[in-house]
Amino acid sequence: MAKVIRVNMTDLTVRTEEAPAAWAGLGGRALTSTIVAEEVPPTCHPLGPNNKLVFAPGLLSGTAAANSGRFSAGAKSPLTGTIKESNSGGTSARLLSRLDIKALIFEGQPVGDAWYRVHVNKDGVTIEQETETLGKTNFAVLESVASRFSEDFGVLTIGPAGEQMMGIANISVRDTEGKLRSFGRGGLGAVMGSKKIKFITIDGDGSSPIKLADPNAFKAASMVFTKTLKDHPVSGQGLYTYGTAVLVNILHEAGGLPTKNFTSGQYEHHEKISGEKMYENITARGGEPSHGCSNGCVIQCSQVYKDTAGNYVTSGFEYETIWALGADCCIDDLDIIAEIDNVMDDLGVDSIETGVMFAVAMEAGILPWGDGKEIIRLLREEVQKATPLGRVLGGGTLAVGKAYGLTRIPVVKGQAIPAYDPRAVKGIGVTYATTTMGADHTAGYSIATNILNVGGKVDPLTNVGQVELSRNLQIATAAIDSTGLCLFIAFPALDIPECLGSAVDMINARYGIKLTMDDVIGLGKTVLKIEHEFNLKAGIGPEQDRLPEFFELESIAPHNVKWDMDQKELESFWNF
Amino acid sequence: MAKVIRVNMTDLTVRTEEAPAAWAGLGGRALTSTIVAEEVPPTCHPLGPNNKLVFAPGLLSGTAAANSGRFSAGAKSPLTGTIKESNSGGTSARLLSRLDIKALIFEGQPVGDAWYRVHVNKDGVTIEQETETLGKTNFAVLESVASRFSEDFGVLTIGPAGEQMMGIANISVRDTEGKLRSFGRGGLGAVMGSKKIKFITIDGDGSSPIKLADPNAFKAASMVFTKTLKDHPVSGQGLYTYGTAVLVNILHEAGGLPTKNFTSGQYEHHEKISGEKMYENITARGGEPSHGCSNGCVIQCSQVYKDTAGNYVTSGFEYETIWALGADCCIDDLDIIAEIDNVMDDLGVDSIETGVMFAVAMEAGILPWGDGKEIIRLLREEVQKATPLGRVLGGGTLAVGKAYGLTRIPVVKGQAIPAYDPRAVKGIGVTYATTTMGADHTAGYSIATNILNVGGKVDPLTNVGQVELSRNLQIATAAIDSTGLCLFIAFPALDIPECLGSAVDMINARYGIKLTMDDVIGLGKTVLKIEHEFNLKAGIGPEQDRLPEFFELESIAPHNVKWDMDQKELESFWNF
Repeated sequence: MAKVIRVNMTDLTVRTEEAPAAWAGLGGRALTSTIVAEEVPPTCHPLGPNNKLVFAPGLLSGTAAANSGRFSAGAKSPLTGTIKESNSGGTSARLLSRLDIKALIFEGQPVGDAWYRVHVNKDGVTIEQETETLGKTNFAVLESVASRFSEDFGVLTIGPAGEQMMGIANISVRDTEGKLRSFGRGGLGAVMGSKKIKFITIDGDGSSPIKLADPNAFKAASMVFTKTLKDHPVSGQGLYTYGTAVLVNILHEAGGLPTKNFTSGQYEHHEKISGEKMYENITARGGEPSHGCSNGCVIQCSQVYKDTAGNYVTSGFEYETIWALGADCCIDDLDIIAEIDNVMDDLGVDSIETGVMFAVAMEAGILPWGDGKEIIRLLREEVQKATPLGRVLGGGTLAVGKAYGLTRIPVVKGQAIPAYDPRAVKGIGVTYATTTMGADHTAGYSIATNILNVGGKVDPLTNVGQVELSRNLQIATAAIDSTGLCLFIAFPALDIPECLGSAVDMINARYGIKLTMDDVIGLGKTVLKIEHEFNLKAGIGPEQDRLPEFFELESIAPHNVKWDMDQKELESFWNF
Repeated sequence: MAKVIRVNMTDLTVRTEEAPAAWAGLGGRALTSTIVAEEVPPTCHPLGPNNKLVFAPGLLSGTAAANSGRFSAGAKSPLTGTIKESNSGGTSARLLSRLDIKALIFEGQPVGDAWYRVHVNKDGVTIEQETETLGKTNFAVLESVASRFSEDFGVLTIGPAGEQMMGIANISVRDTEGKLRSFGRGGLGAVMGSKKIKFITIDGDGSSPIKLADPNAFKAASMVFTKTLKDHPVSGQGLYTYGTAVLVNILHEAGGLPTKNFTSGQYEHHEKISGEKMYENITARGGEPSHGCSNGCVIQCSQVYKDTAGNYVTSGFEYETIWALGADCCIDDLDIIAEIDNVMDDLGVDSIETGVMFAVAMEAGILPWGDGKEIIRLLREEVQKATPLGRVLGGGTLAVGKAYGLTRIPVVKGQAIPAYDPRAVKGIGVTYATTTMGADHTAGYSIATNILNVGGKVDPLTNVGQVELSRNLQIATAAIDSTGLCLFIAFPALDIPECLGSAVDMINARYGIKLTMDDVIGLGKTVLKIEHEFNLKAGIGPEQDRLPEFFELESIAPHNVKWDMDQKELESFWNF
């Protein structure tokens, strides 16, 4: 029987419950958002005792389904004030599922100054006071924890940024190689810090393989599903070879690569920070160009990036990170960006929020454009040490912009806008404005159709069809985020009819149920509406479903386009 | 014919228009809010080119009416995101009215780095580049400006905080003694800074006395009105003798004096910072206990405070300032608080926002509780120099609380809660939550009835009747704020029937119109609804009409009460 474990951090007690029947068909984002919406008062302070931090594996987590390793974390976000779900790769979703834990819910808040570590294994959950790793960075935590386990285990940890409850703080997750992935966005690391949890370990020892209701049907569906991932050019080749950084040159060509804090759509030195350049460096230095973030990944968009001496620098070196520090901060050196990525992992900060924040800090005159070494110094000497300047920077893009009186602050609902300029790719602008999560590209990745011609073609430069495109993608994404499957299955899902069907077949074979495709789409709609309702109750209404004013005032090269979507049309997003 | 002057800071042009007929019955807050609501896009960036900064004298400004020297400034507030009207004493309202200028509207924003000064006289408005006083503090600006004029003139200026567009920045106003008053709240100094205006001077030379439609009726009404101000014990005696600081001991006794960042309702050392103690110091040192902030004041709540050597330290030394730095920051020394008040005037920062911010900074560990000398150092060395820490502090109470991950942040809509604990004085809690301006006591001063038994008596500790009390006061206040009359006329107005009637008679005699009391109440309602509508369009809805969560979680001594007003009841505020 699937369990829900509630860890009360006020009185340090643990309660294990049978999962309620109403939660049976829910996993991942559907479950975290349901729990947060049901149990967290929408107007509560995100860092206070009434917020909850919820972890949930997806519906297919722990099975042999390809790319089913995603893990969801949910809470009210201190960065956006909205409901938040963030998902990550790593080893933990699989382990929790195999321990038959459907959700792990952290409630309350300790009163004193003590910090804690939490351990999950087959016997349940224990809470112990933690002192050794306090103030330490993530890699130090991993090292400290690794000595306590022999094999397969999971770690969820916060670095100094999370301990200091900064808005840029993420929750980091140990991956299959013992390196870090993260629940990046929305400042969830600050929520974990507010509950005084330094890290959570998950020991899979004694866990059981997932019991499938119909193993043969599962296997058959799984084979079809895996084949679709391998057959599609984006998931089967592009991402495999160049990682997500394959997008640098593509977005530059499309004029939608935000450069120098969103003042241009093209970056002169794009080739120096491209996926192609990354591949060249990796292969020349004995790194790994293709690599999975969790067990059973067939897309392998991750990689291991080494320096010129052949030493490990970073992995999971994403387009978003490279864009934010590269084009947006005008740093044209992939090696420095990789080093910054390593430092960001170590401190436990979201690379999108942090990168965009530094571009704003450059506009504010805090550091020169393009100065990657100064970014490393600011991260190590100011953010890590939580100096006053470190706290301003640690507050994220909006905090820096406000502190320095800027008007060009690329955020929606307080969260930094990612790597696609909404003026030149209007579908993603609809997603940024309307998603329940604050600016977020993954919520409804219109780039697929606007730029990559996946799932058809919608002209990125006109407003026609963008709301419908974003709506369909956001609904599908909310459903996919609930399965534990990687969002990149969306590429084959949009072009190859068997892809989503076989995913539904796997869910049915896993649980012995008979969902239809309509049921899954219905789940996506329900999730979005639950989240939207939470936000409305939190005071975040349609007036905040919009882009910053400067996108309407300034046109962007090379297409010389502004953001000119009618606000009423944007509001029609919710007509479903 | 009354003029409206539009100063376009984008192209540095000036346009003088005849005031539209629809604005004929409007002045002060009614006019600034009407103009902002009609002309400023509610979702614009407050520091961007689409915001406007509007100054308007009241309907009775420039006449011989007692206490008619208040001057209104309006804009979209960078601190609260709401519409904002702030009003101040000083000499400018009278001068503008006598120049027949009904509103002075600053629009647009210069593109380059140059700063400007604006001069208003009988010939119109001129804009000139300003360099001499850039970076200088307010007293230095006054000194620089004074050398250019011989007699009666007005100055509106921003200090370093406004130049740096900080949330705590106010607009300072020269008073009758050549000292400073201010448009304190809502960060209007940052709006003036965003338009690159260092100061505005108003030369009354060649202006004409106000032409009254019926001088005899005016004189008769004015005598009745003045008598009511002198007859009421609060406006006629209490404020005259002890200034607004008379409230320190009263609120301590009532258990509603927020102490140590709102952790108690009583301050052990209240007597050391009381109005009685202030009076003792002033009289012993040759200061002035009673003093007006503008011509024609008969209440004389201001004073001149000197140090032990008999040197001028500050004037307009208000209860709010003394409470915020005294009880809330635990500083029990009136002399240090006076010195801080002087520094705040010099830098151009709101004393409520700044004082409450420092209490939060003390809770965050930035400085020790009660350390007034360190506050002076932080203001001079950090805020004035706009260091990173200075920018955090300059962002105000919410900015500091967020940067340091606190949950006990006493703000509503981003603006600091003033000197009355809403748990112990529930009517003022309704005002804080519902006013269109962010937490503000003047918007509906329930203390009058909850504590001082003026206008009846409503038990401060129960929720009964508080919404109605606050509603009636907010409506009346919106009307009074439109007349140019000081809000302290509300004390006689609540108890002496002739007071408001004679004020309406004065307006009628001034303009040759026939307003009734109902018309004036109707004006108050209209103003509130215009402001509320603006806020709704700006995305600030009923969910944000609430107090911070910690007031619901923590009870306060000595009454051990929490904030427990039903949210639906609060929302019923708008049923009128």
